[in-house]
Amino acid sequence: MPDRKVAVIAFGGNALIREGEPGLEQTQMEHATKLAAELVGLVGQGYRLLLVHGNGPQVGNSLIRMEESVAKVPPLSLHTCVAETQGSIGCCLELALRSALGNRGEVVTVFTPVEVSEDDPRIDKPSKPVGPFYSPYRADHLVRVLDWDMVEDAGRGYRRVVPSPKPIRVLNAALVDSLLDRAGIVIAGGGGGVPVARIGDRIVGVEAVIDKDYTAALLAVAVRADLFLILTAVDHVRLRFGKPDETPIDRMTVAEAERYLAEGHFPPGSMGPKIEAGIAFATERGGEVLITSVEKMAEAFAGRAGTRIVSNEKGNRS
Amino acid sequence: MPDRKVAVIAFGGNALIREGEPGLEQTQMEHATKLAAELVGLVGQGYRLLLVHGNGPQVGNSLIRMEESVAKVPPLSLHTCVAETQGSIGCCLELALRSALGNRGEVVTVFTPVEVSEDDPRIDKPSKPVGPFYSPYRADHLVRVLDWDMVEDAGRGYRRVVPSPKPIRVLNAALVDSLLDRAGIVIAGGGGGVPVARIGDRIVGVEAVIDKDYTAALLAVAVRADLFLILTAVDHVRLRFGKPDETPIDRMTVAEAERYLAEGHFPPGSMGPKIEAGIAFATERGGEVLITSVEKMAEAFAGRAGTRIVSNEKGNRS
Repeated sequence: MPDRKVAVIAFGGNALIREGEPGLEQTQMEHATKLAAELVGLVGQGYRLLLVHGNGPQVGNSLIRMEESVAKVPPLSLHTCVAETQGSIGCCLELALRSALGNRGEVVTVFTPVEVSEDDPRIDKPSKPVGPFYSPYRADHLVRVLDWDMVEDAGRGYRRVVPSPKPIRVLNAALVDSLLDRAGIVIAGGGGGVPVARIGDRIVGVEAVIDKDYTAALLAVAVRADLFLILTAVDHVRLRFGKPDETPIDRMTVAEAERYLAEGHFPPGSMGPKIEAGIAFATERGGEVLITSVEKMAEAFAGRAGTRIVSNEKGNRS
Repeated sequence: MPDRKVAVIAFGGNALIREGEPGLEQTQMEHATKLAAELVGLVGQGYRLLLVHGNGPQVGNSLIRMEESVAKVPPLSLHTCVAETQGSIGCCLELALRSALGNRGEVVTVFTPVEVSEDDPRIDKPSKPVGPFYSPYRADHLVRVLDWDMVEDAGRGYRRVVPSPKPIRVLNAALVDSLLDRAGIVIAGGGGGVPVARIGDRIVGVEAVIDKDYTAALLAVAVRADLFLILTAVDHVRLRFGKPDETPIDRMTVAEAERYLAEGHFPPGSMGPKIEAGIAFATERGGEVLITSVEKMAEAFAGRAGTRIVSNEKGNRS
């Protein structure tokens, strides 16, 4: 095995479609181009990168395209929508990265099926909202035509909810690992991966989505990453976020992170999964976790920004 | 390099959505499952497989989803639609193949950008029909809203046409080659690949589609394939196809294939590109080309069906 330094970098689909943007391709490519410049800087520091992107706004647009046309062409299952976004977002990122890298390295995007358990209790409890808000009339129509689960979000309308089971295993993790020996940048696990389950001898798609932070943690362990970087909307993780006495955290041990999590500092569906994913990686692999924004990535890398999670051993040594 | 025997297998998107079918996911998976059983048979004979699928009916459905929803969400460029189908068709095939293979091998699907030249004269002459037929009213609307090129097809309505430039280079061909050392089955170049061009320092998507047979031939040369198998709707290539005296061809040399092509036996947009792709591979690589149907694949492999194209040297020796 070649001597290599690997950073796994997780970021949301909102890195390419920002809050309030409709998601024009040209705008997504502009965001991708800026992100690519930052990422190529890390390649210049000797890292091989494994990128795990989300797909929230993009799969939201796919779902709108699908339900608007369902009278004309067959609907798509959710796992196929996720597979589509692995292609389309991977394409946008790979072209931006190839342009930024020039001859300094290869980029590869790989389709990634991720196993979930049919027995995961989360499968029977659709709770993750996807896509836009609908009027009561349209929501009722979609429930009847597409058999969607919909919930009312106080004041904003109805929204589709889908199951979000925990990922057990990235089916091609060993292959992704080997790709990091050949390519400077690998894009895998897009949208959290395409959820699949083993039913007897078969591997079948599951009508669900997987949180990309959990999948990124699995991949980070599998490829023996040195660093797990989680990009989000804020520069730092904060205690008492949004309260008058909120406090940014520079560094915490796994034990501290677990305590804050139990105390309710990190809401589920937002910072919670990132902290859980960071704890999983720091515990199993012992590597460093860094949580920050795209804008602060370079500073955070240099130790001047962001929130670090370190294993309890490392926390005790320092 | 490991000792290996590689077959490159090209087949259309109509292997999964047959003529007249709407393209339900369940039906596509049924077709994929039957195809996978045949393909796994070849793996059992010691071949590593590189699959290059088309996407005609699937991208047609994507384009309908896009134009039906264009008042609500931004339209997709054609290269992004192709990227989407690399994800969705790759997903369907990979899950069917993983189910069929069990523990007998690994499958991987890789995003594949393919370079075309901005100076290709075909870029300025949209001629490849994609998507459904439209009424004159709807066609006029789509020309105004989406700036599509449309042509009238006598009696059947208007249809979108797009450029179909020749592929120059598969950007990640070396990586695809290396994947064949690790995985029994690699899926690459889907939909003919995502067309990209070099504009200064940048690599950008091109509003076009690439014929998958040409891309498959490039890949077959790049991975030093032993066999290039082109699956199509007919069991044999025929001279004077559709005429009362039509004659199936069992075997022809490159020189014979070139002569028949020049004589107009193989129409452009149908058998023509397959013969051209076969000629390119047999000439550059010297390997064997086999053209037949999915149904006759196993028989053709055993030498009892299909049409073979061999290099002039091999033709002279036999």
